Amino acid sequence: MPEPVRPFRLIDEGIEILDQTALPGAEVWLVVRDVERLCEAIRSLRVRGAPLLGLCGAAGMAIAATADATESALAEAAAALKATRPTAVDLGKAVEGALAAALAVEERGRAAFLWERCARMLAEQERSDAALAAHGARLLTGAVLTHCNTGALATGARGTALAAIIEAYSQGRVTHCYATETRPLLQGARLTVWELQRVGVPVTLLADTAAASLIASGKLSAVITGADRIAANGDTANKVGTLGLALAAKRFGVPFVVAAPTTTLDLACAQGSEIPIEFRDAGEVGGFGAMRWAPAGTDAYNPAFDVTPADLIGAIVTEKGVAVPPYEESLGLMECRASVP
Amino acid sequence: MPEPVRPFRLIDEGIEILDQTALPGAEVWLVVRDVERLCEAIRSLRVRGAPLLGLCGAAGMAIAATADATESALAEAAAALKATRPTAVDLGKAVEGALAAALAVEERGRAAFLWERCARMLAEQERSDAALAAHGARLLTGAVLTHCNTGALATGARGTALAAIIEAYSQGRVTHCYATETRPLLQGARLTVWELQRVGVPVTLLADTAAASLIASGKLSAVITGADRIAANGDTANKVGTLGLALAAKRFGVPFVVAAPTTTLDLACAQGSEIPIEFRDAGEVGGFGAMRWAPAGTDAYNPAFDVTPADLIGAIVTEKGVAVPPYEESLGLMECRASVP
Repeated sequence: MPEPVRPFRLIDEGIEILDQTALPGAEVWLVVRDVERLCEAIRSLRVRGAPLLGLCGAAGMAIAATADATESALAEAAAALKATRPTAVDLGKAVEGALAAALAVEERGRAAFLWERCARMLAEQERSDAALAAHGARLLTGAVLTHCNTGALATGARGTALAAIIEAYSQGRVTHCYATETRPLLQGARLTVWELQRVGVPVTLLADTAAASLIASGKLSAVITGADRIAANGDTANKVGTLGLALAAKRFGVPFVVAAPTTTLDLACAQGSEIPIEFRDAGEVGGFGAMRWAPAGTDAYNPAFDVTPADLIGAIVTEKGVAVPPYEESLGLMECRASVP
Repeated sequence: MPEPVRPFRLIDEGIEILDQTALPGAEVWLVVRDVERLCEAIRSLRVRGAPLLGLCGAAGMAIAATADATESALAEAAAALKATRPTAVDLGKAVEGALAAALAVEERGRAAFLWERCARMLAEQERSDAALAAHGARLLTGAVLTHCNTGALATGARGTALAAIIEAYSQGRVTHCYATETRPLLQGARLTVWELQRVGVPVTLLADTAAASLIASGKLSAVITGADRIAANGDTANKVGTLGLALAAKRFGVPFVVAAPTTTLDLACAQGSEIPIEFRDAGEVGGFGAMRWAPAGTDAYNPAFDVTPADLIGAIVTEKGVAVPPYEESLGLMECRASVP
């Protein structure tokens, strides 16, 4: 079985990234050796997915140090990188982490140090994703449904929920994957279908509206999604549409599983109602790309995420294992645990 | 407040229909005075919606009789009209009804008879829609959410669920309407938004994925949709996506209302599991019109309808009144009732 395509590669004093806005029509690789070009790629969503943005942030600081490793130049690069997606937590953290670490090193060693640090992050992402996939695969069998994109394209390594599906398929456990289109940005139709076809997992696409009836049909043995943030009680913020899938899964007795790294756990956040939800531009709804199907100027309600209450979630899988209700206990223990692949 | 635009008008020995495939970009009216042209319009979905297709079927037989009222010519026209959308029950019934009625009349009087019959059907549709809207409006207040298109564009007169929303707005009861895009054919984004904007009801569009979080937000006082078929126990088949809305409404305590004429009641059908569901072409998913966003040839799961279990439905509104659970009783009584506008 072929490996999922990794969208992020370290090359000599730079990176190569897969332009996700060109998928699935074309596989366009961008060689990036300056910060401005990287900023444009992040802003234009050529790279997306929290862990992948973290890798890009770390690489961006290494690129910056390669050109000019002075404190002022690095601070300027950090500010530019963070400004590309102000709400992307992983990106901001990775950039700030790289900046602080670099300043603790002598100027002439900073570039090499940051490249090495970036390579370590990538290797760590691979280890973490593989561990999560192994834990998640044990929960999956038969036909499963997923939402949005949580594959290699999202993390830079193997992915989260989608990696668990692919792992379970490679073990002969999962036989088929259903993928939602995931309006408004269509990450399911554009990216998840492409990733699954590339590795040879049989995939069937559906409109988001068809998910409840598919879940009701008895064809599925599980629904599995990623997570953007998980509160201490297990309430989970994820790509908008997740809540609807979880409600249907509960009603029709299909296990609903969340798969995300422990970096997503926010135990300082007691419950889902405390998670701020990003609302995005109305123009994303009522059309796609240059095509419009709603009347021009139509107002839209466009939250990027929704919150799934913990009582709808059968299990939360991380790289450290599987947490089950009550999540107040199991997630607290999970944070203390060492990674057990 | 302006009247909703009626998409079907009787003109001298013909009809004028609004080309719904050109909406919302352009308002294109087609003058139709031959059966072949009407068949093309139905096949290409320039007209859609069960009651409107019924009107078109009746008008098609009048058009046919105007050219040649012999039995063989009428039978040929009936076959051609029915073949355009084989699963459209109202279309088939209207064509067969017109054919049988016409053959009971002398040949030279058939055309005039069929035109008069068609005008009566249109007037009856207006009366029925107005009665349904009046009953439905009493259940609605504040902000409401609807799905797909159930307006004048669907029935040829005032519409069903959307007519109830517009009526409630004109009474100062409803203040705002949220409309789902309704993938894959986007009737909400293309048609419902256009209709509401035309009559001046404030409307906000959302991706289908955002409906559950909108329902959870506490902004809504009701969710109201149409129905394609209602079983004796109240289980309701409607545009795919309805089930997901009903599940979210149940969970978050928002009343879920179905609005449809009594012609939609199928009391011979005991429950929803007996309702056959039409599956449509995979090409409708993964793109829209000429635009594709999924990889070419991607397999798709594309049911046109889903079935909402009766226990999720707070009320069923028809032109005869409002039925509430237990539906086995209330729907049976509703069928016996005279129309009470």
